[in-house]
Amino acid sequence: MNTFGRIFRISIFGESHGSGVGVLIDGLPAGLPLIFNDFETDLGRRRAGAKGTTPRKEADLPKLINGVFNDLTTGAPLMIQFENTNTRSKDYDKLRDMPRPGHADFVASKKFGGFEDYRGGGHFSARLTTGLVAAGVIAKKLIFPVEINAKLIEAGGNADIEAAINKAVEEQDSIGGIIECRAKNLPIGLGEPFFDSVESVLAHMMFSIPAVKGIEFGSGFLAAKMKGSQHNDVILSKDGKTKTNHAGGINGGITNGNELVFRIAIKPTSSISKEQQTFNVATGKIETLKVEGRHDLCVALRAPVVVEAATAIVLADLMMLEQKIKRIV
Amino acid sequence: MNTFGRIFRISIFGESHGSGVGVLIDGLPAGLPLIFNDFETDLGRRRAGAKGTTPRKEADLPKLINGVFNDLTTGAPLMIQFENTNTRSKDYDKLRDMPRPGHADFVASKKFGGFEDYRGGGHFSARLTTGLVAAGVIAKKLIFPVEINAKLIEAGGNADIEAAINKAVEEQDSIGGIIECRAKNLPIGLGEPFFDSVESVLAHMMFSIPAVKGIEFGSGFLAAKMKGSQHNDVILSKDGKTKTNHAGGINGGITNGNELVFRIAIKPTSSISKEQQTFNVATGKIETLKVEGRHDLCVALRAPVVVEAATAIVLADLMMLEQKIKRIV
Amino acid sequence: MNTFGRIFRISIFGESHGSGVGVLIDGLPAGLPLIFNDFETDLGRRRAGAKGTTPRKEADLPKLINGVFNDLTTGAPLMIQFENTNTRSKDYDKLRDMPRPGHADFVASKKFGGFEDYRGGGHFSARLTTGLVAAGVIAKKLIFPVEINAKLIEAGGNADIEAAINKAVEEQDSIGGIIECRAKNLPIGLGEPFFDSVESVLAHMMFSIPAVKGIEFGSGFLAAKMKGSQHNDVILSKDGKTKTNHAGGINGGITNGNELVFRIAIKPTSSISKEQQTFNVATGKIETLKVEGRHDLCVALRAPVVVEAATAIVLADLMMLEQKIKRIV
Amino acid sequence: MNTFGRIFRISIFGESHGSGVGVLIDGLPAGLPLIFNDFETDLGRRRAGAKGTTPRKEADLPKLINGVFNDLTTGAPLMIQFENTNTRSKDYDKLRDMPRPGHADFVASKKFGGFEDYRGGGHFSARLTTGLVAAGVIAKKLIFPVEINAKLIEAGGNADIEAAINKAVEEQDSIGGIIECRAKNLPIGLGEPFFDSVESVLAHMMFSIPAVKGIEFGSGFLAAKMKGSQHNDVILSKDGKTKTNHAGGINGGITNGNELVFRIAIKPTSSISKEQQTFNVATGKIETLKVEGRHDLCVALRAPVVVEAATAIVLADLMMLEQKIKRIV
Repeated sequence: MNTFGRIFRISIFGESHGSGVGVLIDGLPAGLPLIFNDFETDLGRRRAGAKGTTPRKEADLPKLINGVFNDLTTGAPLMIQFENTNTRSKDYDKLRDMPRPGHADFVASKKFGGFEDYRGGGHFSARLTTGLVAAGVIAKKLIFPVEINAKLIEAGGNADIEAAINKAVEEQDSIGGIIECRAKNLPIGLGEPFFDSVESVLAHMMFSIPAVKGIEFGSGFLAAKMKGSQHNDVILSKDGKTKTNHAGGINGGITNGNELVFRIAIKPTSSISKEQQTFNVATGKIETLKVEGRHDLCVALRAPVVVEAATAIVLADLMMLEQKIKRIV
Repeated sequence: MNTFGRIFRISIFGESHGSGVGVLIDGLPAGLPLIFNDFETDLGRRRAGAKGTTPRKEADLPKLINGVFNDLTTGAPLMIQFENTNTRSKDYDKLRDMPRPGHADFVASKKFGGFEDYRGGGHFSARLTTGLVAAGVIAKKLIFPVEINAKLIEAGGNADIEAAINKAVEEQDSIGGIIECRAKNLPIGLGEPFFDSVESVLAHMMFSIPAVKGIEFGSGFLAAKMKGSQHNDVILSKDGKTKTNHAGGINGGITNGNELVFRIAIKPTSSISKEQQTFNVATGKIETLKVEGRHDLCVALRAPVVVEAATAIVLADLMMLEQKIKRIV
Repeated sequence: MNTFGRIFRISIFGESHGSGVGVLIDGLPAGLPLIFNDFETDLGRRRAGAKGTTPRKEADLPKLINGVFNDLTTGAPLMIQFENTNTRSKDYDKLRDMPRPGHADFVASKKFGGFEDYRGGGHFSARLTTGLVAAGVIAKKLIFPVEINAKLIEAGGNADIEAAINKAVEEQDSIGGIIECRAKNLPIGLGEPFFDSVESVLAHMMFSIPAVKGIEFGSGFLAAKMKGSQHNDVILSKDGKTKTNHAGGINGGITNGNELVFRIAIKPTSSISKEQQTFNVATGKIETLKVEGRHDLCVALRAPVVVEAATAIVLADLMMLEQKIKRIV
Repeated sequence: MNTFGRIFRISIFGESHGSGVGVLIDGLPAGLPLIFNDFETDLGRRRAGAKGTTPRKEADLPKLINGVFNDLTTGAPLMIQFENTNTRSKDYDKLRDMPRPGHADFVASKKFGGFEDYRGGGHFSARLTTGLVAAGVIAKKLIFPVEINAKLIEAGGNADIEAAINKAVEEQDSIGGIIECRAKNLPIGLGEPFFDSVESVLAHMMFSIPAVKGIEFGSGFLAAKMKGSQHNDVILSKDGKTKTNHAGGINGGITNGNELVFRIAIKPTSSISKEQQTFNVATGKIETLKVEGRHDLCVALRAPVVVEAATAIVLADLMMLEQKIKRIV
């Protein structure tokens, strides 16, 4: 349930306010150089700090606990852990009776019988994506020369990201955004015709990222409004290069050698400072809730590196299945 | 690769112009009533015939080969097969050197080294969804009283489906569409926080359906333009009923008891009668191609029942994982 | 549940007295030559006919339904089916109330609630191994130049197989046997340190074969009586050749390049002509049962080719995981 | 590869001389009481100390890092780690050129290209079974009232265990042993007819334990010498109680409600103090090796609790598949 992948397999674990979070990676080739510093760039991109992000700061220093020897992967399971250092759990005690709108509080208490660690979202917290980003750093190394680039192309319905953030700060209301991800230098032939189409596996992974509510490949939802004569990409050469890329680099579920392109929709952060209504299970009434805690106004700001990592993890697995990555690198 | 599910597991097989297609279902509870006639309604909805659908007619009579005894499932693997009876394979021989734009011809030849059965798309054909629909009939029985309803809400960018089809017929060009799917009476608690979120598993399955290029849950891409105070659904009662349903029935990856709502984007059928350009691998030149064969002008017309089946299959598996369906019914 | 393998994946289905049995193979490389005649030798070895085998004769003609095109595998799922032609189901009706000792009748009725197809053991029948043998024929091609050889080395506690069979025929009582299997030319490095050790995966598969009750690798149970100085195999060369082979070709769960050697214990056939006692669920009393039907006196006689097939299937999967077999052959 | 189970899933990680070892458990029901002290009894049984066990002493204090809140499981992944505190890694540096007979040194260097952590067997070390024992403690709680009992019934070919150990100490040679495991109060109906037979899954797991070279169920290898009329267990009652238990509690791969009985063969510890011959890859000659390090003379002494844990893990998963254990306990 918390594991993804068929050969390159990652398992995430941890809680927002417990001792920490992390990732366990199995199926990793032996001989891949890996040191502490490799993680800094991507973890830094995920880290809070910019305007619109949470005041909770975590250093996120990765501990390479197992699976590395002499700065090289051994082929055994790789364990990376991150400590939680900056938690204010008392903010959450009062929320037990009043599930926060938009959050997993209500479903978690039903699914796990009230035994879940509710502090800061517990195991549902986006803090778990720290492990994803760490695994992504490794996956990016494996899939070289494939290059992945994700960016926020719209926030709060606006292409001017900075203005949107400023407005959100002013209104003390959260906003969502759209992230576009592109990957180039992909080999032809990744993916399978049906259940393990590249779209299937990527979408599976992307909806693992908290707050993602939509995904589209190539022309996506716009394709539904096009004619076949417009949408079909003319093939120009024996290596499959196409004139346009409405397909987003995938035909019949299989990579076609053109750039992989997809976009994901991120909803506005559920936690807002404004007062909200919700059901109080103790009193049996609908009451007013003011969510405390420290939160992102626009979680989409920190998400591009998570989307890149998630993409890299999927591609690493697909490439290993197609024997495009060796077991000993 | 051609198998989906963790407990309720389906495997599809077959080719468009081979001897037939089918589905093998494992993990099916014992004691479920099942007869030939159960399949007629849904297979009929998938069958061609209406304006805008392919002139290739297949009777699609399901053969219940294994796993049923005295009109009840036995708990052993259930095998359902469909014969291909109406094939015109010679239409495809000339296509070998000229991969059809939008189709899997090019990627299939690269992935399978030219050994693939190329006739009518071979194993990539949407004809394989016959098996999905059959499995869906069974899944729908299992998940009762959950009810699923999918419908085409837009074709060719137009909410008036009939007018859009008439125009496509007139222009001899294909069109796409948008399908909305809703499921009610779902138990609370299906799905997992990350990799097996309900959105992840449903999206995985939906992108298995040929021509699907996008999916969104609840407000979906529109959510990216909303504020948190607008998007958050106010919880009204102890059973989790919400005032609005922007979340589409899912919080934190878990069903919340409200209606499940998602939409998928279907691209226009790749096969069109109009002349197109493509690369001829024999001559090494870009040449003009006229696609023969018999095709749907709007494959989205026949897709709602496939989407329903795919949804039912996913929900059956999730409900078995949560022990909401017994092993002996 | 009825599927085995991670990349080279086989699913078996069918019943002893239903319409037939078969196997669905996924993950098969494209381009492998495959024709009807390829199966004859191994299916012939499994077929009944010799003294001590069942009088029920089945032609076992394999139908290659899907996944083959122009006598070559396509890379799509391969479906092979066998019809049942020689069934005498009425023999089994009277058994419903009196579970046969040694058989699965009792557990099947409990597990599947009485909905199981009980005729001839239904889905529990050794007839299902026809599909295994067919899959083994393909796996043997894939793993070339690995060679597998299994033989019956003991029957009824006696190394003189013929005498043991004659005695069993005379006594009209069934006997068991021991099969030894050897595989040579194996690459070094198959398997994993713990859960997917070569012993783990082979044992998993071998206990899928009906009537198998024990397995040992190399010196096996005798090793438990040896000293380390006796059991350790001295390494003689850089390619890992050892002086002795007490380890049976496996160290730490990984193939070491020496011959793979294991033995399996097969219990005597449960069906015997002699009268037996069993509980009658209708009368609530222990009563005398005379098992009708047609059976093997020594099922171990027909098992070596099943053991070879099972071994080949396991090795094909392990070799694909280690990228020792290409996706397009 | 380092993960086992379908619903109750465990992943082990770590190295003998790295920072530690551990286990990650997913699919665990919520609400199970779990504290540090729960582990002491079983970890104590695994710990070295008795005559014939290694002089390397490890405290093996379990750290419950994630998945527990207020001394109850949360339903999120449970992480348990153990530090390595007592390592003497320099003992192993000289072994790099001379693979130890019976050990995984040679295969590890081939499989992982020399990048493996070779100190103390690295990831191949039996120290990894600490994680198994910890997972077993939890599994035993889940499967209650099923009770598992494993014991060493033979060491060095001798039923008098103490005398065998004394002799081994005297000779400074290692010995193997046979462990018998019994489980009672099992529900009827666990397991599947073929690939996931109870024997298959248990054997898969047992061969994950280092040094295991054989397994047999019920009469096992002796069954191969019996007649059907001797081996068949007469069914005595409607709950399946049998007069004898030659089947070891399993028919057709399914538990029949009688006691589960199996035996495993453990080879003598590969590390011995005596001089041995092996190939020196640096010199290209066969040379004399004296294995330093600290080792068990009879690893079978410490193995029963590991076998119990492994059995409990398998049964917990099978029982969850059959819905015999709830998702919230």
